[in-house]
Amino acid sequence: MPHTQMKAPLKLGIAGLGTVGAGLLQLLNVHNARVADHLGRPIKVVAVSARSKGKERGVSLRDIRWVDDPVKLAADPEIELFVELIGGDDGVAKSAVETALAAKKHVVTANKALLAKHGFDLAKLAEKNGVALNFEAAVAGGIPIIKTMREALVGNEVSRVYGILNGTCNYILTKMEQEKRSFADVLKEAQAKGYAEADPTFDVGGFDTAHKLSLLAALAFNTKVAADQIHIEGIETITQFDIEAANELGYRIKLLGVAQMTDSGIEQRVHPTLVPEDSAIAGVSGVTNAVAVDADFAGSLMLVGPGAGAKATASSVMSDIVDIAAGFVLSPFGVVTAKLKPYKRAKLGQHTGAYYVRLTAYDRPGVMAAITKRMAEREVSLESIVQRRPRGAQATQPQAPGGQGELANVVIVTHDTTEDAIRKALVAIESDGKVAEKPQMIRIEQL
Amino acid sequence: MPHTQMKAPLKLGIAGLGTVGAGLLQLLNVHNARVADHLGRPIKVVAVSARSKGKERGVSLRDIRWVDDPVKLAADPEIELFVELIGGDDGVAKSAVETALAAKKHVVTANKALLAKHGFDLAKLAEKNGVALNFEAAVAGGIPIIKTMREALVGNEVSRVYGILNGTCNYILTKMEQEKRSFADVLKEAQAKGYAEADPTFDVGGFDTAHKLSLLAALAFNTKVAADQIHIEGIETITQFDIEAANELGYRIKLLGVAQMTDSGIEQRVHPTLVPEDSAIAGVSGVTNAVAVDADFAGSLMLVGPGAGAKATASSVMSDIVDIAAGFVLSPFGVVTAKLKPYKRAKLGQHTGAYYVRLTAYDRPGVMAAITKRMAEREVSLESIVQRRPRGAQATQPQAPGGQGELANVVIVTHDTTEDAIRKALVAIESDGKVAEKPQMIRIEQL
Repeated sequence: MPHTQMKAPLKLGIAGLGTVGAGLLQLLNVHNARVADHLGRPIKVVAVSARSKGKERGVSLRDIRWVDDPVKLAADPEIELFVELIGGDDGVAKSAVETALAAKKHVVTANKALLAKHGFDLAKLAEKNGVALNFEAAVAGGIPIIKTMREALVGNEVSRVYGILNGTCNYILTKMEQEKRSFADVLKEAQAKGYAEADPTFDVGGFDTAHKLSLLAALAFNTKVAADQIHIEGIETITQFDIEAANELGYRIKLLGVAQMTDSGIEQRVHPTLVPEDSAIAGVSGVTNAVAVDADFAGSLMLVGPGAGAKATASSVMSDIVDIAAGFVLSPFGVVTAKLKPYKRAKLGQHTGAYYVRLTAYDRPGVMAAITKRMAEREVSLESIVQRRPRGAQATQPQAPGGQGELANVVIVTHDTTEDAIRKALVAIESDGKVAEKPQMIRIEQL
Repeated sequence: MPHTQMKAPLKLGIAGLGTVGAGLLQLLNVHNARVADHLGRPIKVVAVSARSKGKERGVSLRDIRWVDDPVKLAADPEIELFVELIGGDDGVAKSAVETALAAKKHVVTANKALLAKHGFDLAKLAEKNGVALNFEAAVAGGIPIIKTMREALVGNEVSRVYGILNGTCNYILTKMEQEKRSFADVLKEAQAKGYAEADPTFDVGGFDTAHKLSLLAALAFNTKVAADQIHIEGIETITQFDIEAANELGYRIKLLGVAQMTDSGIEQRVHPTLVPEDSAIAGVSGVTNAVAVDADFAGSLMLVGPGAGAKATASSVMSDIVDIAAGFVLSPFGVVTAKLKPYKRAKLGQHTGAYYVRLTAYDRPGVMAAITKRMAEREVSLESIVQRRPRGAQATQPQAPGGQGELANVVIVTHDTTEDAIRKALVAIESDGKVAEKPQMIRIEQL
């Protein structure tokens, strides 16, 4: 109900004061009056918990009670809403969130790993206790995709949700394309600049994207979160040659997370993807994220914005807090847990689409004939097949090992086919001994 | 509160059964169970009103009461929510909405013209009666921009909101660019295809964009709606030459609505705009709409999607209905009307930015010197100045009237300057008698 006089403040406890936690405190400092004007009630941080009390965070903790144990904070009788910014898919984050929900505190979290693993159980616990479990900040930073899917698209059947969900990967792929540099080279720079972790596997291997995708898929299809049902490939195998070849074919390479409803179940896939260069998502570069939804009434929507960063993430945490302060409590995954459908995984082998294939073939007579024969046997029809020497940094034509002659790159774009067919064709080509390396295969997404 | 058992249905009355009204009935037919699952309560259309009872709409009106007078429907004791899809900025739409609000019915409307003109008064009336006035469908069709601004961005100060808000204009500009055709030619085709009205002024003149912009500005800056405080230019003056010249300079031309906070007040501008070709909005083509927001914490967000159409618009109407059914009632413009600030208009003359200028100059010695001198007098510094013959369809160099010799296009891109300075320089150039036509001046937006 639109308010006409100020109500009592909503009392928060925040656990975890890393960059996002500090960003949230900063936001609350700067915009407290604005938020109170919108809500008709102020938001008040009454207690915090973090590892180090003395650490300089650029924000004052005066008048905020310090609680050493985040799990204690979660049950603190003074707080109504527990903000979990600790991180981690188990351990103290999980204990604290469970404790808060059981104590009938609303919970706001940015913890995608926790929700990917325990989302369903935590949603049930929230439901049982009649409180909110909001997680806008867990997917795509400052982009309001959870609100869009959970609220704006209620009157829609979603057929696909996909996106660029990891800024590190998109930064690396963008740099590789723009500066014609290798994956290893750009990764090293990203690590030096702090855009990539010392152990980059979680990002570049596609696992971070998979966590986020599992939450989007649950919202899109009203199923239980199924983070262990995702086909995951990272960007480590993408070469400069692949990027240039894709460009010449009218595509860009992006690491996409794609969740798609098919006749045989749900596909959740994370993999490097050729997207048409004139598609909106192809233009999303650098650390920027984008999430697109195909819905039967709303049509194709895309949301673009910062996927990480203290301020953008704090903005999403705040969006969740504001909803709760206004009394808007929704089921975490849109419908009550009893109505969340069991997850039915589609067989990846039945995935239908076009493929980019790069073969490092021996440059000998008959190779092209052998390759095309194997494709034909599996009824994979080809849109194009081109034999090309490597260019740019690798301009010298490589020699095959063991004096078997020169090598050439054969680039193939298929028409729509099944994953089974293309994989079997490639196995046959490998076993023919016509290629010197494992074939590169990248899915092309119809957008 | 997450629901565990079904509650009583929310009872709707719908006035206006044009394409959007029919789309809404279709959506409710198709997705009634889905919506009920999300809300824990069904949505039920109990009565409708439209001009012609017998018209074929592709949806059944069985079991729905027909009310001849929409104003009567608005006060119908059976309905809790009145959906206004009549259109028009006064007359029956206004009477019906006022009647519904006064009768303490929630109102959902797609009527941008009504809100642009009477938004503040209607918001006050809604507030007084403790009901909702929701209008997601009034701006950018299926794109959830109202929800994003009113809810997701509460913890942000917005410095600018801008967008491609009229599909007809974007379609025409896209076609002109892609097919190298004139404005008049593409407009004619758009009219034949039903993408443009017989009298296209409302769209191509920028007035439709202005209505939508006024609502976005009110939400962005928490001011009263000020649709009469907008500088409006249409796309009628854009030539094929301008589009090609812009492309060569690394830009595209889009009709943007821009609302921007400046030191001296708020700028609301609707005009053809040069946007950098690598900006996300440059890639938004055809009838697609896009809205971008620059916010201090969330950063730069952009939402892209269908700006019109029965289904997409119905999806947004449904989003509003669902919020009300769930008990989520917000102030129409984010804060209570008493907190909406008076609108302070910035002087357009003080607008700072870069400009594209095209002069149709007499091709004689000294012309360039005269032009650059006038620019220098107003301290307008030039990034580039190029004299070019028209190309393409107009490849023959035009003759000046009265045998004054040949004409040439002089294309100038300025560095940042003020609108006053560039306008005064152009007046001086005109009065020098060096140009045969009124100069073309297009603002370049920093994105």
